[in-house]
Amino acid sequence: MTYCVGIALQNGLVMLADTRTNAGVDDIATFQKMSVWEAPGDRMIALCTSGNLAVSQAVVDLLDEGVANDAGEVETLWTVSSMFNAARLVSRAVRAVYSEHGPAMRAQDMQFSQSILLGGQITGGQVRLFQFYPAGNYIRATEDTPFLQIGEHKYGKPILDRTVVHDMPLEDAVRAALVSMDSTLRSNLSVGLPIDLLVYRRDALRVGARRRIHDNDPYFENLREGWSQSLRAAYQSIAAPEWMRDI
Amino acid sequence: MTYCVGIALQNGLVMLADTRTNAGVDDIATFQKMSVWEAPGDRMIALCTSGNLAVSQAVVDLLDEGVANDAGEVETLWTVSSMFNAARLVSRAVRAVYSEHGPAMRAQDMQFSQSILLGGQITGGQVRLFQFYPAGNYIRATEDTPFLQIGEHKYGKPILDRTVVHDMPLEDAVRAALVSMDSTLRSNLSVGLPIDLLVYRRDALRVGARRRIHDNDPYFENLREGWSQSLRAAYQSIAAPEWMRDI
Repeated sequence: MTYCVGIALQNGLVMLADTRTNAGVDDIATFQKMSVWEAPGDRMIALCTSGNLAVSQAVVDLLDEGVANDAGEVETLWTVSSMFNAARLVSRAVRAVYSEHGPAMRAQDMQFSQSILLGGQITGGQVRLFQFYPAGNYIRATEDTPFLQIGEHKYGKPILDRTVVHDMPLEDAVRAALVSMDSTLRSNLSVGLPIDLLVYRRDALRVGARRRIHDNDPYFENLREGWSQSLRAAYQSIAAPEWMRDI
Repeated sequence: MTYCVGIALQNGLVMLADTRTNAGVDDIATFQKMSVWEAPGDRMIALCTSGNLAVSQAVVDLLDEGVANDAGEVETLWTVSSMFNAARLVSRAVRAVYSEHGPAMRAQDMQFSQSILLGGQITGGQVRLFQFYPAGNYIRATEDTPFLQIGEHKYGKPILDRTVVHDMPLEDAVRAALVSMDSTLRSNLSVGLPIDLLVYRRDALRVGARRRIHDNDPYFENLREGWSQSLRAAYQSIAAPEWMRDI
C-alpha cells in the first residue's frame, strides 16, 4: 500500500509520500515514490505514485525517456511547455505502459492499479496539482478542493477536511499533511516510514524544501506526540452530555 | 454503507450506529440498525448490523423467533444464559440465514455481506462485546482492543486509536464514539444521520441511555463545531519546522 497527499495552495504546493512497498506482509521494502524534475528558474515538477511498483517505475522512466505527443514530437517532463501538457504527457505515459504490460498482467489476473499525483509549476504558468487514475484520465485540484490523495487515503482524510483551505500558509499545510500521514501510519502497517516531503513556494521555480523524514526525526516525533496530546485534550474539552449525569 | 462502533469498558458499554441504507446514491432510506433486548434486572443486549439489509433483518428476526442449539433447544436473545451463548446464537442465526438465502444470492452474484456488533451483559456474567463476520465467526473486544467497528470504519478510527482505553470513563467513550461518527459522516455520504446511541453502565442490567440523535440535536451540533475548532487549534499549536523559515 501507499499513502501520498498533495496540497495546492495560493502560495505554493506541499507533497508528501511514504516509501513502503509490500507484496504481502512478509515481503516489505523501501522504495522512493516521489520523483522530482527541477530546472531552477524554469520548472519544478514532482510526481508521487501508488499501486503496482513495476508500473510506477515504468511510467517514471518513460517521463524521463520521452513519449511522443499527437504531433509525433517526443516530450519529457524536462521539455513540456506547461503543467497542462505535463499532465497530458503523464496520461500518455500511463497508457503506453498499459499497452506494453496490461494484457500480460490481465492474463494473470493482476490489476493494472496505478494512481499518480503530479504537482508543480513551469515558468509562465500557474501552480497545478493533478491526480491520475489507472486509465490515465485525471482531475485537477481547485480552490474548493485543494488537496488530493492516493493510496490508503481514508485514515488521513478527516484532518485534511477540517483544516485545509486554499489560502492557508504553506507551513500550516506542511503540518496538516504530516498529521494526516501520522494517522495513516498508525492504522495501516503497509504505509511506512521514512516519508518524503516536498515544499514549493509559488513562482520560486525551484524546490523550497525536500526532506526525507525517518523514524528518529525530532520534528516529526514531536509533532506525533504533540498531536496525540492535543487530540486527547481537545476531545476532553468537549462537555459531556447532560443526560449522562443520570446513568 | 453503515458505520457502527462499540466500546467495551471497565465500567460498561457504548454502542453507536448510523441509520442510512442505500442501494445506489439515488436510493437512500433510514433504517434502524441497532436492536436492543432489555429485561431489567436480568439482561441488556444490543446488536448493530451492517451489510445487506435483507440479511440483517432476517438475522434480527431469527434472534427473536429462536434458533435451535446443538441440543435441539430453541433459544432466543431473551433466553440465552450468557453473553457467550448469545454470541453462539447470533452465529447460528447468521448461518441459518445464509443457508436460506446464500445460494440464491450467490447465483445472482450478490455478496452475503454481513457484519454485526453484539454487546451487553446477562445477570451473573461480564460485559461483553463481539464482532461477527459474514461466515458467522466472531471475535471479542479485550482490554488491549476495547473498541470494535463495522462498516465504513477507516475515517473514524484515528480518533479511537488515540483516545480509547479500557478504563476510561463512560462519558469519555461517548464523546470519542460521537467524534468518530462525526468524522465518518463528513467523509462518506452513505453514512447518515440520525444516529442511535446506547450507553450501558456495568451491572445495571438495564439500558443506561438510548438516544436517537438527529441533525438538529444541540449537543451533537456543539460537539461537531467544538471538535472542529479544537482540531484546528490543536494542529496550529504544533510548532512549524525550523527549516520552513528559509523557504
